[in-house]
Amino acid sequence: MTAPDYGRAFALWRDAAAGPWHAYTRHAFVEGLKDGTLPRKNFLHYLVQDYVFLVHFARAWALAVTKAQSLEEMRAAAATVNALVNEEMQLHVGTCAQAGLSEADLYAATERPENIAYTRYVMDAGHSGDLADLLAALMPCVLGYGEIGARLAVEATPGTPYADWIATYGGDDYQTLCRETGAMLDAALTARIGPDFAGAPRWPKLAAHFTRATELEVGFWDMGMTP
Amino acid sequence: MTAPDYGRAFALWRDAAAGPWHAYTRHAFVEGLKDGTLPRKNFLHYLVQDYVFLVHFARAWALAVTKAQSLEEMRAAAATVNALVNEEMQLHVGTCAQAGLSEADLYAATERPENIAYTRYVMDAGHSGDLADLLAALMPCVLGYGEIGARLAVEATPGTPYADWIATYGGDDYQTLCRETGAMLDAALTARIGPDFAGAPRWPKLAAHFTRATELEVGFWDMGMTP
Amino acid sequence: MTAPDYGRAFALWRDAAAGPWHAYTRHAFVEGLKDGTLPRKNFLHYLVQDYVFLVHFARAWALAVTKAQSLEEMRAAAATVNALVNEEMQLHVGTCAQAGLSEADLYAATERPENIAYTRYVMDAGHSGDLADLLAALMPCVLGYGEIGARLAVEATPGTPYADWIATYGGDDYQTLCRETGAMLDAALTARIGPDFAGAPRWPKLAAHFTRATELEVGFWDMGMTP
Amino acid sequence: MTAPDYGRAFALWRDAAAGPWHAYTRHAFVEGLKDGTLPRKNFLHYLVQDYVFLVHFARAWALAVTKAQSLEEMRAAAATVNALVNEEMQLHVGTCAQAGLSEADLYAATERPENIAYTRYVMDAGHSGDLADLLAALMPCVLGYGEIGARLAVEATPGTPYADWIATYGGDDYQTLCRETGAMLDAALTARIGPDFAGAPRWPKLAAHFTRATELEVGFWDMGMTP
Repeated sequence: MTAPDYGRAFALWRDAAAGPWHAYTRHAFVEGLKDGTLPRKNFLHYLVQDYVFLVHFARAWALAVTKAQSLEEMRAAAATVNALVNEEMQLHVGTCAQAGLSEADLYAATERPENIAYTRYVMDAGHSGDLADLLAALMPCVLGYGEIGARLAVEATPGTPYADWIATYGGDDYQTLCRETGAMLDAALTARIGPDFAGAPRWPKLAAHFTRATELEVGFWDMGMTP
Repeated sequence: MTAPDYGRAFALWRDAAAGPWHAYTRHAFVEGLKDGTLPRKNFLHYLVQDYVFLVHFARAWALAVTKAQSLEEMRAAAATVNALVNEEMQLHVGTCAQAGLSEADLYAATERPENIAYTRYVMDAGHSGDLADLLAALMPCVLGYGEIGARLAVEATPGTPYADWIATYGGDDYQTLCRETGAMLDAALTARIGPDFAGAPRWPKLAAHFTRATELEVGFWDMGMTP
Repeated sequence: MTAPDYGRAFALWRDAAAGPWHAYTRHAFVEGLKDGTLPRKNFLHYLVQDYVFLVHFARAWALAVTKAQSLEEMRAAAATVNALVNEEMQLHVGTCAQAGLSEADLYAATERPENIAYTRYVMDAGHSGDLADLLAALMPCVLGYGEIGARLAVEATPGTPYADWIATYGGDDYQTLCRETGAMLDAALTARIGPDFAGAPRWPKLAAHFTRATELEVGFWDMGMTP
Repeated sequence: MTAPDYGRAFALWRDAAAGPWHAYTRHAFVEGLKDGTLPRKNFLHYLVQDYVFLVHFARAWALAVTKAQSLEEMRAAAATVNALVNEEMQLHVGTCAQAGLSEADLYAATERPENIAYTRYVMDAGHSGDLADLLAALMPCVLGYGEIGARLAVEATPGTPYADWIATYGGDDYQTLCRETGAMLDAALTARIGPDFAGAPRWPKLAAHFTRATELEVGFWDMGMTP
């Protein structure tokens, strides 16, 4: 299947990061979700770390609110903070509750270094640059999960115990969010750099943020394989 | 009437800032809202500046999300960002629309120096300190409007054209928000400093943020009187 | 006399802010320094506020260190922090000591709202954007003092009691700093936006930071006139 | 030998992090510097990563300048930025030049994930908290190198090719810096929390920053062993 269309900047960054992008979106962890062979223990370990990841991801989108330069950017970022805190994090809470873990347990979980590296890199991309730098570092997670979800919704082995996870990211709500976020990204780049944003001097730096965050996603899946 | 109870830290800071607090909460602008004598022109001028203020106030609460150190703090701050962007700012939009001003006009309005001084002071209180510093600078607006609203709900001249404004800040929803915010503040101070927070070495610095932000509120009302 | 040449971006921003720039660089306070008619009381009042200003200006240049994206940018910003803390602030300390004010007095001086508005605006320009946004807000002070100093070095009434102030900003060291800073600015803009930086979508936003900071300089001189 | 005395807070944090602290200060990499058995290839690999580390460490100390709340704190942080940029980084430049690496090569070196995790964690400790949080995350590097240097200055095998490195961190200049930094730390904690800072509610959080940064130092040495 072809990758979903999340806009112009994403397509360019994705191509520029082809190797790491493949390693990320076709990772053994992902394939294990798809065919159901991923051990439950690994999945739960991943979920706990991912909960802590989402705490910091919500912080990063909140940082985006402080760096927005239009009403649309501010609203989109604020809506994402809200969705993360009140929806996506609650999915993890629900699943982990079945395994006997409370939300307080999740919040207090010890972060693995791979998790620290990724989340703090994103925060620093934001603090050291402007909204475009921050968005470049945020996109591999947001849109990569969309691409993985869309593929797995088609390819998953019937009966995989990870059908809920796949339905979340492959479902219409999340796919719509990805298309809207991709459009917001293109608009943010156009507003700051112009319609030919890919030819600007700062483009390689933005692409480097995207590539680096993609590599850190690979590290995150690797961590998921070794609970 | 007695001032509403928004918690322990607020009561202490309010007393320590008695002079500026009176100048703020009993300002001629406020009395003009109460008895209806405030010229419409002044009110609209204020609303436009206040819209821009709320943009930056939402940014400041988003900064609070990035500085939260508990799930409760993060959720409270995220909910406030959401309420500001999707509710309080929309009240201004509605009222200003009747006067022929679009939301784009509001967002693009030229900030008055009094507005810049206040909002950027709050942002910097957050960036230079921790969440407690930021909250100290945020409280005069949040809780002062609550106190003003509660008083005017009782004392307002029947038929004042500013009954909607008074109903917003004097109403149950906003008063509940104030009590919850005051409780969150006390909890945040207790978690960082301990139950005797008012005796800590950093207390005068926190009180100074509160007093300064109160003085900047006075400047904001002054500005409202001179469109 | 013609204005000194501090580079390409400065010349463009200066022209775009022509009215405020004239109000700033030809302010009655400046003319009073030039011909010696400025009351000593006003000058000391200004010096005290300017000391506090420099504390925050050093903070803003330190923020620039955190946002640099080349070794040259980092070094230039770090050198400026050092020069501010260890040289420019010490000039104020020396002069104020003659008037019986210790450095601790200066550091603890109550900031005037005009001072808060300016310094916190600059900090927020940095936090909300990238280094280019921050530099745009920093330049009116750095380069405006250079332009004022260069003019007053030529035009000052012999015997003005403010000859030291004029010698500081009109002297070779400060003029060299201005040319180097202007060159660093042009390089920073070229690296991020390209050689035609003035045609980029973000240019008006950068020019607006420069204009706004210039207006806040006018407010600062106004404050100096009313001790 | 007994560990050097760098003040009260350091001694407490060091004890609370006993396991990781031992793993850090007695790491095989350190022992290889001591007896000269560390392969040159590993040392150069470490130096390149450490140069990039210092770039971000200088950014973190610059962030400390923006978060200082006394003249002494601001000056100490500014002096450290200056020492890092103009002295410590130049040591690396000199050594690497002998191996054919230019400073531009160093600045552009690809960061290893262990490096990213550590430096961005420190930056975020600062952004999410106040100066005390930032200092807690900065101390393991500053003072740990002091403790390692002091020990190796006594214990090193004569003729170890890493005598220069040992002389740098074990020498009087660096040891003085460590004692001054430790004193500044104690003063910063006392000013914010009081003389009994170790009994404050926020103490465990500060100790956790110190422990985490110590663990990330262990990861950094591990990385040094696998070029």
